[in-house]
Amino acid sequence: MTVNRHRVVIVGAGFAGLSAAKALASADSNVTVIDRRNHHLFQPLLYQVATAGLAPTQIASPVRTVLRRQANVSVELDEVTGIDLTNRHVRLGARTLPYDSLIVATGATHAYFGNDEWAAHAPGLKSLEDALSLRRRILLAFEAAEVAVADAERSRLLTFVVVGAGPTGVELAGAIAELAKRALTSDFRHIREVMARVMLVEAGPRVLSAFPPSLSAYAKRALEHLGVEVRLDHAVTGCDAGGVDLGAERIAAANIIWAAGVQASPAGLWLGAETDRAGRVVVASDFSLPGHPEVFVVGDVGLLRDAAGVVVPGVAPAAKQGGAYAAKTIAARIAGKPGPPPFRYVDFGNLATVGRKAAAVSIGPVRLTGFLAWTFWCAAHVYFLIGFRNRAQVVLDWTWSYLTFERGARLIPEAVSRRGDTAPDDINT
Amino acid sequence: MTVNRHRVVIVGAGFAGLSAAKALASADSNVTVIDRRNHHLFQPLLYQVATAGLAPTQIASPVRTVLRRQANVSVELDEVTGIDLTNRHVRLGARTLPYDSLIVATGATHAYFGNDEWAAHAPGLKSLEDALSLRRRILLAFEAAEVAVADAERSRLLTFVVVGAGPTGVELAGAIAELAKRALTSDFRHIREVMARVMLVEAGPRVLSAFPPSLSAYAKRALEHLGVEVRLDHAVTGCDAGGVDLGAERIAAANIIWAAGVQASPAGLWLGAETDRAGRVVVASDFSLPGHPEVFVVGDVGLLRDAAGVVVPGVAPAAKQGGAYAAKTIAARIAGKPGPPPFRYVDFGNLATVGRKAAAVSIGPVRLTGFLAWTFWCAAHVYFLIGFRNRAQVVLDWTWSYLTFERGARLIPEAVSRRGDTAPDDINT
Repeated sequence: MTVNRHRVVIVGAGFAGLSAAKALASADSNVTVIDRRNHHLFQPLLYQVATAGLAPTQIASPVRTVLRRQANVSVELDEVTGIDLTNRHVRLGARTLPYDSLIVATGATHAYFGNDEWAAHAPGLKSLEDALSLRRRILLAFEAAEVAVADAERSRLLTFVVVGAGPTGVELAGAIAELAKRALTSDFRHIREVMARVMLVEAGPRVLSAFPPSLSAYAKRALEHLGVEVRLDHAVTGCDAGGVDLGAERIAAANIIWAAGVQASPAGLWLGAETDRAGRVVVASDFSLPGHPEVFVVGDVGLLRDAAGVVVPGVAPAAKQGGAYAAKTIAARIAGKPGPPPFRYVDFGNLATVGRKAAAVSIGPVRLTGFLAWTFWCAAHVYFLIGFRNRAQVVLDWTWSYLTFERGARLIPEAVSRRGDTAPDDINT
Repeated sequence: MTVNRHRVVIVGAGFAGLSAAKALASADSNVTVIDRRNHHLFQPLLYQVATAGLAPTQIASPVRTVLRRQANVSVELDEVTGIDLTNRHVRLGARTLPYDSLIVATGATHAYFGNDEWAAHAPGLKSLEDALSLRRRILLAFEAAEVAVADAERSRLLTFVVVGAGPTGVELAGAIAELAKRALTSDFRHIREVMARVMLVEAGPRVLSAFPPSLSAYAKRALEHLGVEVRLDHAVTGCDAGGVDLGAERIAAANIIWAAGVQASPAGLWLGAETDRAGRVVVASDFSLPGHPEVFVVGDVGLLRDAAGVVVPGVAPAAKQGGAYAAKTIAARIAGKPGPPPFRYVDFGNLATVGRKAAAVSIGPVRLTGFLAWTFWCAAHVYFLIGFRNRAQVVLDWTWSYLTFERGARLIPEAVSRRGDTAPDDINT
């Protein structure tokens, strides 16, 4: 019996993949979860790592630990290089892994809209590596500004431009403004609060475009209250080591952060499937690949219109729901039972925070702003963090930084080096 | 008055440098602390980061934060490239920084006794970077072992050789044994406790040679109780990607960790000074450089025989005492008062821990072992950690991992990659 157990391979241990694995706990199957990182990442709080508010361990857990108690799951740390739909196996370099059912949940990354050369100057924020490198970049800019001689150079070093005013961009801009204008200034002798400039650039007409307009207006005011310059209806037209171009206007800035655009992972290529412009795989109403009922594409890499006609958005709750739905479909087939009713996306609403005391929350007809919304945002995020331990630590950290304006995770593990060539500002490169 | 204030430059923000800066708080001086890392590191707990017990933020604090309340101190993140004793300035690439008094506290690193090519295969443990890279290496070895097909390969991947049985080597070997034999095995499906092998190799006749012989014997028994193979009187004669040579014996091991030997930083070269074989600068009885009463060399980079004829050892308490002594000498000169009485090293004793329940403590005539010593070790280390916040977090973490055998910091930020060349075990390189 065990020899012939149904083999499910899940590629990706994000919200969709983990949710699928858990929903298969009682199915008569052997489940293998593959990810090229050893941890599940709570992406909604990644901006806190980038702005030195939380440490990596507080928003990530090893995939093995998350799934350790589920006896029918094994976890492999490896990178998928292709999928053979005909022979039903996943390729991992020279190695292959056979499947009876396959769940592809490889997620998405940011998009530079055809300007990939901007990536070097305007890094995005999708992985722990991204966040640690951004943290290093931001902290080193302050260090370089502290010893900068020329005013123009100091001002360039202390200018932060966040591109894209979705939740990530709004949260980043708010956190950087607090870091620059409050938390850090007491540590430096030659930097004063007024020297730092934080700008949020958005091509569309409002921030948080997925939220109701009243909350967009609120978030803009809250950002401006923190000292963030919000530029709406401005598209970035150029990006280099010295700064950013907004049409004819040039902003000299050493720190440009990309929070715009979404590009799905290359699973569409592996599957030879129809994709939209963002690379998302167009799937059938049960998340399966058209023509391949044994293959499911869930989370940010899939594109589905649900039973109510709603296009399922690329957010964490939608990914969890999709992963669980695909798993239930597989479990029902294994058990020889009818599958679940048509998928219907349950919208829990939208949340975004702006700094220490403000947030915007939209749940059905309910709109919350200000401190109450911020409290709700905190509670919701801590609740959904995996594992009691991380929760307790995050609560402790947030309480601490709320009371003290401290940023606990301001470490740059690497040493700076003057060996070899030495321009005065090279520690910022 | 402020224009002509005495300028003190301190190079290095380890125990000696920080202790010197603090002792200058009330001296009429402008103090500049330079370090090429942005943080002070609590090195005695670095092995815990390497073995995934603690996160970097729990044992390190930004130098700026540690010194923020001391108004006469500025901190610069930069790398010293030389010292001009004649013109009294420190070189930082093309930039220079003048001083009236200079304190050199640049520390030491590990030594390969002329076999620097071993460094690639047997990394040491001196910085956060070292610890994170070691953590990655250890965790990836388990991941590779989980999917390894051949028994010999799995056994090589799960063999850990620690070279050098000083406190760091003993603590590392104990922590790796616990990690390998307890904490991790429940997370893996194809690795069992008995497969892991941890070996501690020491060229001398006993472990913890700075401790009384009875404690050395105790520590050896405690290590063996944890499953560590202790090899005394064995020198490493070769080291490569496949394993380590102990004379004629070959140990196939994917994980070799170097905890032997000390090599002082190159300050001796900058100063053109007399050094011992380990590169330590021979200093006068007040830590000053002979012929240069305005230059002090303290901590692991200096070599001093104190007023009682004792060679001051390279341990944290000695570094703190030396840094403070040099600072008091400078402060007395500024104030036109007589200097402090001749330096006398106060020996607080020796502590080392072996795993979760055992430690060896020697304080004057007192010898402690077992659980009581371990409790004392914990209390002492938490007490000396900088900052209330880190203390609280470490207590929380230790309590948690004591109760659960969990290791909270098991993250590898980087993704593995199969792009390009792909040997089956390349994720371990």
